[in-house]
Amino acid sequence: MSGILKVGIAGLGTVGSGVFKILQETSELLEKRSGRKVVVTTVSSRSLEKSQRLNLAGVKWHDNSIDLASSPDVDVVVELIGGSDGIALEIAEKSLQSGKHFVTANKALIAKHGARLADIAESKKLALAFEAAVAGGVPVIKVLKEGLIGNSRTRVAGIMNGTCNYILTTMKESGRAFEDVLKEAQDLGYAEADPSFDVDGIDTAHKLSILTAIAFCVPVDFPAIYIEGIREVSLLDISYAHELGYKIKLLGIAGSGANGIEQHVYPCLVKLSHPLAKVDGVNNAIFIESDRVGKLVLEGPGAGEMATASAVVADIADIAAGRFTYPFGVPVSALQMRNKVDFNNQKGEYYLRITVRDEAGILAGISDVLRAEDISVESLVQKPVKKGQDVNIVVITHVCSEKAVKGAIEKISKIKGVVDKPRLIRIES
Amino acid sequence: MSGILKVGIAGLGTVGSGVFKILQETSELLEKRSGRKVVVTTVSSRSLEKSQRLNLAGVKWHDNSIDLASSPDVDVVVELIGGSDGIALEIAEKSLQSGKHFVTANKALIAKHGARLADIAESKKLALAFEAAVAGGVPVIKVLKEGLIGNSRTRVAGIMNGTCNYILTTMKESGRAFEDVLKEAQDLGYAEADPSFDVDGIDTAHKLSILTAIAFCVPVDFPAIYIEGIREVSLLDISYAHELGYKIKLLGIAGSGANGIEQHVYPCLVKLSHPLAKVDGVNNAIFIESDRVGKLVLEGPGAGEMATASAVVADIADIAAGRFTYPFGVPVSALQMRNKVDFNNQKGEYYLRITVRDEAGILAGISDVLRAEDISVESLVQKPVKKGQDVNIVVITHVCSEKAVKGAIEKISKIKGVVDKPRLIRIES
Repeated sequence: MSGILKVGIAGLGTVGSGVFKILQETSELLEKRSGRKVVVTTVSSRSLEKSQRLNLAGVKWHDNSIDLASSPDVDVVVELIGGSDGIALEIAEKSLQSGKHFVTANKALIAKHGARLADIAESKKLALAFEAAVAGGVPVIKVLKEGLIGNSRTRVAGIMNGTCNYILTTMKESGRAFEDVLKEAQDLGYAEADPSFDVDGIDTAHKLSILTAIAFCVPVDFPAIYIEGIREVSLLDISYAHELGYKIKLLGIAGSGANGIEQHVYPCLVKLSHPLAKVDGVNNAIFIESDRVGKLVLEGPGAGEMATASAVVADIADIAAGRFTYPFGVPVSALQMRNKVDFNNQKGEYYLRITVRDEAGILAGISDVLRAEDISVESLVQKPVKKGQDVNIVVITHVCSEKAVKGAIEKISKIKGVVDKPRLIRIES
Repeated sequence: MSGILKVGIAGLGTVGSGVFKILQETSELLEKRSGRKVVVTTVSSRSLEKSQRLNLAGVKWHDNSIDLASSPDVDVVVELIGGSDGIALEIAEKSLQSGKHFVTANKALIAKHGARLADIAESKKLALAFEAAVAGGVPVIKVLKEGLIGNSRTRVAGIMNGTCNYILTTMKESGRAFEDVLKEAQDLGYAEADPSFDVDGIDTAHKLSILTAIAFCVPVDFPAIYIEGIREVSLLDISYAHELGYKIKLLGIAGSGANGIEQHVYPCLVKLSHPLAKVDGVNNAIFIESDRVGKLVLEGPGAGEMATASAVVADIADIAAGRFTYPFGVPVSALQMRNKVDFNNQKGEYYLRITVRDEAGILAGISDVLRAEDISVESLVQKPVKKGQDVNIVVITHVCSEKAVKGAIEKISKIKGVVDKPRLIRIES
């Protein structure tokens, strides 16, 4: 571990500029801490705009990122361009094949091609590191792989998308509807012009698939994830949830048990006393349950120029210090496919909101269905309405199966006087 | 990094037995994850009692731990005996001098002799690791040293003693007094027969001194810490705090600023919305503020056989994987003495409870003193009492200096009709 570690940064957007600045401004401290001098020798970027604010004196500039990946001036390639395929994938492959360590914040790339890239990296004894890909500045990958190395992990659940958490928090606090708050988030720069990756849960699912692989020593399996976003979360449900002692959060949840692996992304009711209920705004938080440590919660900024850049820099410093870990915690060859738990057999508690006409006998019909499906009720709320208005009946169930609750919804939908399909939200305990 | 890593465990008490069990039961997984086989070859213990439950077949037994420290069968010595001096120190010195890595959960040892031991370890290129010494199963040292390597840290504050947090939580929830709850904690095994290390804040201060050194690159300076325990925390104050929107927590707090380093251990009022207010029972939580990541909170079990053992095992696995870090994050020679902030110049908000006779004019006298000391009042509570009873006046101040508030207390004590010295509790914002 001697000599200078030469870094090439592909992409000088928000995070890329942040990484460049930290490596430049903290050069001396990083050398003291990692034991080796780290220098950015080379950068590439499509646009000059953001990079004009950087002090690039003495730094080689490539217009073409692919050239950077094979440049002799580079020991570590840092990819901060994004996208699961295309240029990002090309840089990753070329970097590793050219004998260069590869660091990225690109969750889509790792979720899709992580195992293959890890295989190349391992065969060449190179680092493939992506701490910044999950939960930004929160070092959850390091904690899972190294801090909890002596543990079997049973559950990982988290708020992994700051945009969604901001929207849900703001809806609750301001009483404004989804579309309105989304617009504001876009104006504030918290949400993209095309918000679908965030609000439809894809981004959370990318991150979850990576954590699942690391936590449970299984291959990344993004397509296995059941995904539901937050577009359908209504103010009405947020308000009922609050009244019943819950908040609604978009969670990524993965579990490992005797029946195999489950992975889900969906809005959940979490009890106000649950650690994840207390995480508001753009923050991220990850809850990890493992056999020896028990419950661990990590909370911090999941995005932002400097927080994300800090995680990238930590990966680079690990390489500088020669701190090698397997990309997914064990060699790729040791990642074992496990059974996927049948979603229908999953058990949990459920929130159901059923909108009905203000007529006699409907509640009895609903109760009959619940009894027939063997679903017992933990609490039920029905408020008085003005004559002629529709009534909302909100039910919190005791633990039952996904299959039973879906069966109940089908049947309840057909009861005369029930307006719309009942709204189902799962409860994370 | 090849061949077997041979581990010797000195001390088979609660944590020692836990480490032994994890290394034995998780042997295969640990080898996959760290890339090297880890085997306990040697143990030593004063008592056979706990070790009789372990499968010690093929493991060498030393009655004398010092012999273990120089045994040729050992690459890593794990000290789990405890105590800042005596046998623990002797083992540490002998292990490192004999060319063996040294892992410990002993906060008192590291708080007192950490720098000297780190110096020996560094000069011999050996590991000195003590993740388990702070916050048990919560990998806060790894997060500080490695996860936040690119950050300057400005503040570390935490609940680092599960016993105190259990006592304060239970006092609040059950409305029972300190002595009563302490007795229960002792019966439950949460508190020692001699509870002074815990309840007088010494244990928290040991841990804080280690975090301060790592966070701010300064030598460990335990004697510099101002320490106040929880014996004086009354139910009355817990109840007033709650009413005003706060909980009382014993915190270790360290800060780094232009004027130098501050380190304190004392009971604090923390706002109910503060992440540390939500940490109840025996859990620990550490709040870290740094320039790039901002605010990070880690919460989990701060004690317990397996949680603490898990942290010890993580240190051993780092050694197995060749993941070397400087014990205090930078070489000992790079730890720089910094100015100690004068406690009197510290600024903050304060809670004052002043017990007075139910007579006219006393409140005016108190107000005069506060005005004279330039202390402005954020809120004030005085409740009606039965005739003849003493009255409690509770004041929450705006930000003022420690000097001003102490001056005010002196003067208020002398006002005719003021019973006892006013009770002062600091507020952590």
